[in-house]
Amino acid sequence: MTDRTAITRLREKASTERAQLDALLDTTRVGHFALVAPDGHPVVIPTAIVRDGDRVLAHGSTGSRWMRALADGAPTCLAVTALDGLVVARTAFESSLHYRSAVLFGACTTLAEDEKHDALDLITEALLPGRTVEIRRPNDRELRATLVLALPIAEWSLKVSDKWPEDEPEDVAGDAWAGVVPLSSSYRPPRAAPDLRAGIDVPGSVRALTGSSGDTAQ
Amino acid sequence: MTDRTAITRLREKASTERAQLDALLDTTRVGHFALVAPDGHPVVIPTAIVRDGDRVLAHGSTGSRWMRALADGAPTCLAVTALDGLVVARTAFESSLHYRSAVLFGACTTLAEDEKHDALDLITEALLPGRTVEIRRPNDRELRATLVLALPIAEWSLKVSDKWPEDEPEDVAGDAWAGVVPLSSSYRPPRAAPDLRAGIDVPGSVRALTGSSGDTAQ
Repeated sequence: MTDRTAITRLREKASTERAQLDALLDTTRVGHFALVAPDGHPVVIPTAIVRDGDRVLAHGSTGSRWMRALADGAPTCLAVTALDGLVVARTAFESSLHYRSAVLFGACTTLAEDEKHDALDLITEALLPGRTVEIRRPNDRELRATLVLALPIAEWSLKVSDKWPEDEPEDVAGDAWAGVVPLSSSYRPPRAAPDLRAGIDVPGSVRALTGSSGDTAQ
Repeated sequence: MTDRTAITRLREKASTERAQLDALLDTTRVGHFALVAPDGHPVVIPTAIVRDGDRVLAHGSTGSRWMRALADGAPTCLAVTALDGLVVARTAFESSLHYRSAVLFGACTTLAEDEKHDALDLITEALLPGRTVEIRRPNDRELRATLVLALPIAEWSLKVSDKWPEDEPEDVAGDAWAGVVPLSSSYRPPRAAPDLRAGIDVPGSVRALTGSSGDTAQ
């Protein structure tokens, strides 16, 4: 832990547990990379992220200016945040959110051409487990057009807010309700593309993700 | 629109529609503020955000180093991102996400003491409509301990990805399924705090949010 990752507030929320970090990275699909533009202004790039052991992968187009800046090793901060619920306290002051929030500092490297194939499979599988065996392999044109970035999991911090409201005794003695309202994300029934050829069923990957029987929504 | 907000890629996803920006800001609870630390490294601060007309409000503790830096007018980029679904194409290359993503550039101002009360009410109501009338007003100690920041909605860009997969004709002619799997967030039944006094029912604000009858989960 460095000065940058020392959490100066809410120390009780700080966790150095790598397993909790991994759980957050493995279940959160979007991360926010910050970098400093040439004019000195900060810029944020939201993008899909996937953990691969001790690094976080992100992919994008070789045509993206900010992706190229990250690929060139610009110092970056990656934030990965999950919102888990509302903390409904007896006062506005003590009301807050349940969340898990990680920041990772460092610089990205770019995966070599011969590493891209496996990395893209990993990304595909993370977003939709079982999908790679249902589709063709990426071709050379597609691989060339894709940047795959890797940020080492080295300098990071994690805050977890998962407690009950902590109202003052005089507020606990009052008449206001207090508790937590959990928030969760879920996939809804798949919708078939308008140009889907007749007779192609919802595949196993999508059925497993949505718990659906294969019916599609309109 | 400035050079910073000109979207160089995926122009068809660019939208200058303020109504779409407002809809995103009004339904997304967490934003990511980036700033540049004194050592030149970018830093990201995730925090609850609420739109107030032509500005975005965020609040935090006066004890937070990064909140104070934002309050001091550090140049910032605020990213607000909603993940709306998976785009399941017939190839990994064309597979992507449905999302709405806004970035706002500028610098925050700090609300004066006499503006904080109304701003905090607005934040409380945005997170949990109807809550302010169920709880006591913030007291002077609480107001003094709270920073309220405002970022003008002035220099911004919005990308909306909401299209069907766009596979090449030879892939459309193949056997792979294609479509979209929508993703949505929802509140689950409220959980009462362990120290809740007997006889205090789930309030109207929480019932309206969760569509619950007043029963609580264990």
